[in-house]
Amino acid sequence: MKTYTVGVVGATGAVGKEMVLCLHDRKFPLSTLRLFASQRSAGKRVDTPYGEKEIELFSPEKAAQCDIVLMAVSGSFSKEFAPQIAEKGAIVIDNSSAFRYNDDIPLVVPEVNADMAKGAKLIANPNCTTAILTVVLWPLHKSFGVKKCIISTYQATSGAGQEAMDELEEQTRKILNGEHFEPQNFARPIAFNLIPRIDSMQDNGYCREEMKVVKETHKIFNDNSILISCTAVRIPTFRAHAEAVTIETEKEITSQMAWDVLAEAPGVEVIDDPESFDLPMPLTATKKYNVEVGRVRQNLVFGKNGLDFFICGDQLLKGAALNAVQIAELLIHSSPKSSILKKE
Amino acid sequence: MKTYTVGVVGATGAVGKEMVLCLHDRKFPLSTLRLFASQRSAGKRVDTPYGEKEIELFSPEKAAQCDIVLMAVSGSFSKEFAPQIAEKGAIVIDNSSAFRYNDDIPLVVPEVNADMAKGAKLIANPNCTTAILTVVLWPLHKSFGVKKCIISTYQATSGAGQEAMDELEEQTRKILNGEHFEPQNFARPIAFNLIPRIDSMQDNGYCREEMKVVKETHKIFNDNSILISCTAVRIPTFRAHAEAVTIETEKEITSQMAWDVLAEAPGVEVIDDPESFDLPMPLTATKKYNVEVGRVRQNLVFGKNGLDFFICGDQLLKGAALNAVQIAELLIHSSPKSSILKKE
Repeated sequence: MKTYTVGVVGATGAVGKEMVLCLHDRKFPLSTLRLFASQRSAGKRVDTPYGEKEIELFSPEKAAQCDIVLMAVSGSFSKEFAPQIAEKGAIVIDNSSAFRYNDDIPLVVPEVNADMAKGAKLIANPNCTTAILTVVLWPLHKSFGVKKCIISTYQATSGAGQEAMDELEEQTRKILNGEHFEPQNFARPIAFNLIPRIDSMQDNGYCREEMKVVKETHKIFNDNSILISCTAVRIPTFRAHAEAVTIETEKEITSQMAWDVLAEAPGVEVIDDPESFDLPMPLTATKKYNVEVGRVRQNLVFGKNGLDFFICGDQLLKGAALNAVQIAELLIHSSPKSSILKKE
Repeated sequence: MKTYTVGVVGATGAVGKEMVLCLHDRKFPLSTLRLFASQRSAGKRVDTPYGEKEIELFSPEKAAQCDIVLMAVSGSFSKEFAPQIAEKGAIVIDNSSAFRYNDDIPLVVPEVNADMAKGAKLIANPNCTTAILTVVLWPLHKSFGVKKCIISTYQATSGAGQEAMDELEEQTRKILNGEHFEPQNFARPIAFNLIPRIDSMQDNGYCREEMKVVKETHKIFNDNSILISCTAVRIPTFRAHAEAVTIETEKEITSQMAWDVLAEAPGVEVIDDPESFDLPMPLTATKKYNVEVGRVRQNLVFGKNGLDFFICGDQLLKGAALNAVQIAELLIHSSPKSSILKKE
């Protein structure tokens, strides 16, 4: 079997670390793993499932020596370096928002639009909330035609990085001990609180996270006609995002019809025994590849053409690292070997 | 000024304690406060803003000696005793769900349907989620005509009582210390988790908490034509419920039109400066009488006839104790004195 040199840029972050774990867990045909980070982490040695590895100081030249580069860095960093790396011949899968709305660059959720990845040298990984949503929404859209979609999110601190997760723990301890603290990663305390805004505000009164869900779902589904509205809320959980979703469909839909479709959908796990409290929740969705869906019920507002459901998926996995590794898997299975391997 | 003997039944619970604080804080014209509870608490002496008080063992006869009785007990307890107390001549304001759907018994949110309380001897206090919702939804309904309403809730542990709040704290400590625990008040762990079901499941796939919002809003608005759907989710906060709300209206609506209406609405506080993160959240809504509303924006699904907004209100106050005390205030201001005072 052919094997590949894979680079992870931003290897010390929450998403970067999960990318390494996903590559190993999914037995990605990897010959060499190279880990890149900024000056602050360069030279450190870290434990990985591939053994102890040294973090290299990032440069586009070094990253471009890899066959495939997974980037888990800021949008501005990706914007500067991802095209350079791709131009030099490596395939880049970028987790930032830098290229998601560029018409020339595919935005891929493998369960939805795998074909879009074919032949691309730079591929964008969607926003976490969108990735988790689309894997469940797509099979329903294919079967019933989604006309309207209203989403309220329950987002974990992991979406703001490892430091934000650490801060949730630290704030919580301090509140329980009656100690003073100043919020660092969020504008307001998050422990025992919620914050109903994520990312910057847009002119239409929505915040950027909410508009990402709208715009990215349109692009991934290649269908701008679906009316989508989202309310993005940060809650004090660590790493799985949940979403309450209401849809109106073209065709009539029942909960049984939805369960039948979702039971066959890739990347989806129906957990829907409310009587027993077996339902999607961060407790069970954390560290799970599949997105959990439950509370499936015919909707009281849209009637026979409406459905309510609740989903929960790991923000660091399907919402980031797993989706990126799945894209890499697509590429090595769908592309002629020579188009990826630079050193053959 | 005439004064009244007020009894609080369930005086040691989270809601009962807040009722006493509200009576005092709002300078209710009270001559005597009597606190009733079960055998477990009877005889205990507790500190109140009215001085130290002894908890009396509840009996309907003793409660009926009061002019006004505020009940903060279970539905089954209220079902048995509230009518007995009312028959004996006291006015009963009941916080349980026992009488909310009884056509002969008014269900009152003073900002919405104060007139319904007139002359009643037994009045039902609504579900917490409904009370918090209706105080904001009503002025919008009056001005724009709400046709459809979709709600996702972010409910605090206080909704399940003082023990549930204590359990959130205890579970959180144990998780941070790596200690084992068994959930007591909730079927699943709530610390750093969420539970997307509240109260028992109904035949239509909705849980009882969700259907309470539908049925009680219809009754309080005296309008069954509004299509309402709710998803009820418990999150790890202590005592303020938040709700993401999407409405479709008969008349066209803009965020400015909504702000103008909400700024004048009783019981509502517009907190809507997303740029500065001044938004409704448990951190600020806790221990506040008014319900906070923010994130007001024209909706992307219903367009010119649609609005999204986010609300947060104290579950123990507007969601329970405050609303009950407000009803008592209505009664003493609207009724001929003799119809309430039994001992004149």
